[in-house]
Amino acid sequence: HHCVIAAFPLRRLRPGREALRAHANDVSPMSIMSCRIYMDCNATTPLEPEVIQAISEALQDAWGNPSSNYIAGAKAKATINQARENVARMVGGKAEDIIFTSGGTEANNLVLHTALEHFRTSCRAAEQREGHRNGSSGLPHIITSNVEHDSVKLVAEHLQKDDVTYVPVSKGTARVEVEDIMAAVRPNTCLISVMLANNETGVIMPVQEICQRVKSLNKRPERLRILLHTDAAQALGKIRVDACELGVDYLTIVGHKFYAPRIGALFVNGPGRRTPLYPMLFGGGQERNFRPGTENTPMIAGLGKAAELVTSNLSDYESHMRTTKLYLEERLKAVFNGKIRFNSHFPGADILPNTCNVSILGPTLQGWRVLSNCRRLLASVGAACHSDSGNRPSHVLLSCGVPPEVAANALRLSVGRATTKADVDAVVEDLKETVQLLEEMN
Amino acid sequence: HHCVIAAFPLRRLRPGREALRAHANDVSPMSIMSCRIYMDCNATTPLEPEVIQAISEALQDAWGNPSSNYIAGAKAKATINQARENVARMVGGKAEDIIFTSGGTEANNLVLHTALEHFRTSCRAAEQREGHRNGSSGLPHIITSNVEHDSVKLVAEHLQKDDVTYVPVSKGTARVEVEDIMAAVRPNTCLISVMLANNETGVIMPVQEICQRVKSLNKRPERLRILLHTDAAQALGKIRVDACELGVDYLTIVGHKFYAPRIGALFVNGPGRRTPLYPMLFGGGQERNFRPGTENTPMIAGLGKAAELVTSNLSDYESHMRTTKLYLEERLKAVFNGKIRFNSHFPGADILPNTCNVSILGPTLQGWRVLSNCRRLLASVGAACHSDSGNRPSHVLLSCGVPPEVAANALRLSVGRATTKADVDAVVEDLKETVQLLEEMN
Repeated sequence: HHCVIAAFPLRRLRPGREALRAHANDVSPMSIMSCRIYMDCNATTPLEPEVIQAISEALQDAWGNPSSNYIAGAKAKATINQARENVARMVGGKAEDIIFTSGGTEANNLVLHTALEHFRTSCRAAEQREGHRNGSSGLPHIITSNVEHDSVKLVAEHLQKDDVTYVPVSKGTARVEVEDIMAAVRPNTCLISVMLANNETGVIMPVQEICQRVKSLNKRPERLRILLHTDAAQALGKIRVDACELGVDYLTIVGHKFYAPRIGALFVNGPGRRTPLYPMLFGGGQERNFRPGTENTPMIAGLGKAAELVTSNLSDYESHMRTTKLYLEERLKAVFNGKIRFNSHFPGADILPNTCNVSILGPTLQGWRVLSNCRRLLASVGAACHSDSGNRPSHVLLSCGVPPEVAANALRLSVGRATTKADVDAVVEDLKETVQLLEEMN
Repeated sequence: HHCVIAAFPLRRLRPGREALRAHANDVSPMSIMSCRIYMDCNATTPLEPEVIQAISEALQDAWGNPSSNYIAGAKAKATINQARENVARMVGGKAEDIIFTSGGTEANNLVLHTALEHFRTSCRAAEQREGHRNGSSGLPHIITSNVEHDSVKLVAEHLQKDDVTYVPVSKGTARVEVEDIMAAVRPNTCLISVMLANNETGVIMPVQEICQRVKSLNKRPERLRILLHTDAAQALGKIRVDACELGVDYLTIVGHKFYAPRIGALFVNGPGRRTPLYPMLFGGGQERNFRPGTENTPMIAGLGKAAELVTSNLSDYESHMRTTKLYLEERLKAVFNGKIRFNSHFPGADILPNTCNVSILGPTLQGWRVLSNCRRLLASVGAACHSDSGNRPSHVLLSCGVPPEVAANALRLSVGRATTKADVDAVVEDLKETVQLLEEMN
């Protein structure tokens, strides 16, 4: 009954749709896998065929150096400009607000770097104006939540060991609460960074409300401006995201969570004008010096195409994922009856339409054990980046008040655009058989 | 006679081979371009068909998150490991020595960042050992040349405004001389960064000799270790590059200069063990924490394939480019007779096999003017990153002792794997006609 994970070519495995069939010659009959079903869209998504097409065209036709003063460069530059327009439209910004980066990690790092540089620059300017050192504003203070991605959490830890407040999410709602954020503000607070939606629970955070409250505060003349950032990695392509409506200064965009390639972008509301942006890299002046390096034209083209698809089709994607997830939850309830607990149900909290975090209760049903015995389901127990962190229960779930023995059994099932009801039926059947097996083995 | 640069699709323009023909419907007859010939391979190269194939396969088949504990992740991880082996082999290193980055700019920035962090860490350790501050070692000192790429030059300027020595290249050889580098060493020198080959003149720098001399110095027990870096962006795929033979600690690898995609890598001789490496980004732990962020699997696959091609075919590439360049220089001499000067000929200097930097002498023959009037030739006057720096003569050529009125007329012609003798004939004819036109207009 064990599922052998072999490294033979994975041909066009589409989430929840297709299909991996081993060639009879490649592997022994023991390890022949029937259709695997991908329910880990919060870890990464495949690329949409139109996105692959856009990348392929750019690989062939737009390979010129975008800085070159001739047609090969002009074609590349035009491709990048088009993509910038499309990415901007997806988040409700202007083309000039988009800085392409190598991914979400770089975008998040860039925001924290900027906040600290801005703080130092502001303090120096204030000192020069006032002709003396202002002791209270000596060290920058950052506010974030205790359920952020490592590319925010670890940067905060590294940059400023002593002056970060990790506001805990409420154990009732799994949200970080506006009042808790506001209570953490100090005179030297320079940045508030709160993710738009959590990758494990799917809980949507009250970013708009936080921004409104902070903006009132920022109006006080004596107040150091608090910069506002949200990492929208898990929200884009799943719910409507409008940076201006939210009121953020910075918003992180991660391609591979919305069927785009492995690059990203940072939305900055008027970079270098309305909102400070301090580069981390220095070089050839690309991205208006905010992010130098010869542009990755094909991947940028793919990101633009994927953004265009989100802008055009978001409500279809969203309702399909929501319907599929609700069907999944119903089927799980029906099959496992009183034996399950949903770790993504919190009273009053809005949840991403595609995320179902569920524990099947029982002493031998730890998440990793269930998944490694499933024959068809491909899913995870939490963030992929932590897949080597052993079998400890997710710190995110523990922070949300999920009891340790329940958190240990958590499965994060994240459906996608192509997941069908038949896929759901197959996954639930797979889980049922696996649970029977594990309980018999006990 | 003017060449209209239009932004219509550039279909499979291969360097020096094909061919851009405007569709009659797209543009007016005035702007119909016959075959354009690409001689700007030092700015960027197209992708090899096998590289595009490798990227396309990975886009389809290896889209899983490499950190995921199941087959889609395993396939991606295997793809990355294979590419790491191939990139390592190209530079004579081990797989563990390769850190993938978003490009050369990031790789160069990472080295300079590391050198400064290492200096500070070493000083702190020394202070703790000796129980006092050592005044002389207070500020790190960096040595580089005055013809480096901006991604070294500007980082040095930004990081350490007062303590960088830009050793000038010799006006006789266009090389940075070993004795000049050694004379610049101070007790607090922490890094020497010298490019392997210059992008404008093609001059190959004496990196191996510098490393040998510095390694003797590093053996002195009281000596702070001087770290050794070379940016091999322009050398890879053109001449043999072996990081261990060179003796460098770090070597920058830039995909799009050797028919690979727009990412890069840093060779580090035993990262974190024999050679320090301090990350600039923090996040999910990828690349052994040295460079986190979900891996750009398809581009990494393409980089690996291109590296494999270089390892297999370098001597063919090199001899083809050398033959083609020598033919180009002969034809230029024959046609322009005493009216040209080669800015890439220096007594005793080794030059890249593909780079011809030439000035056609005359008061109206500035490089930008010649190029913008050529009907077929696509080339540049210097680094693409500086294409918007107006029409000032190249600071690199001036540094090499080229007189300003000659430097102003410079054309950087860099041939590639596919450039033919027929391309050369056509380019020389094009230049001849253009020069006649410009001289008549005068």
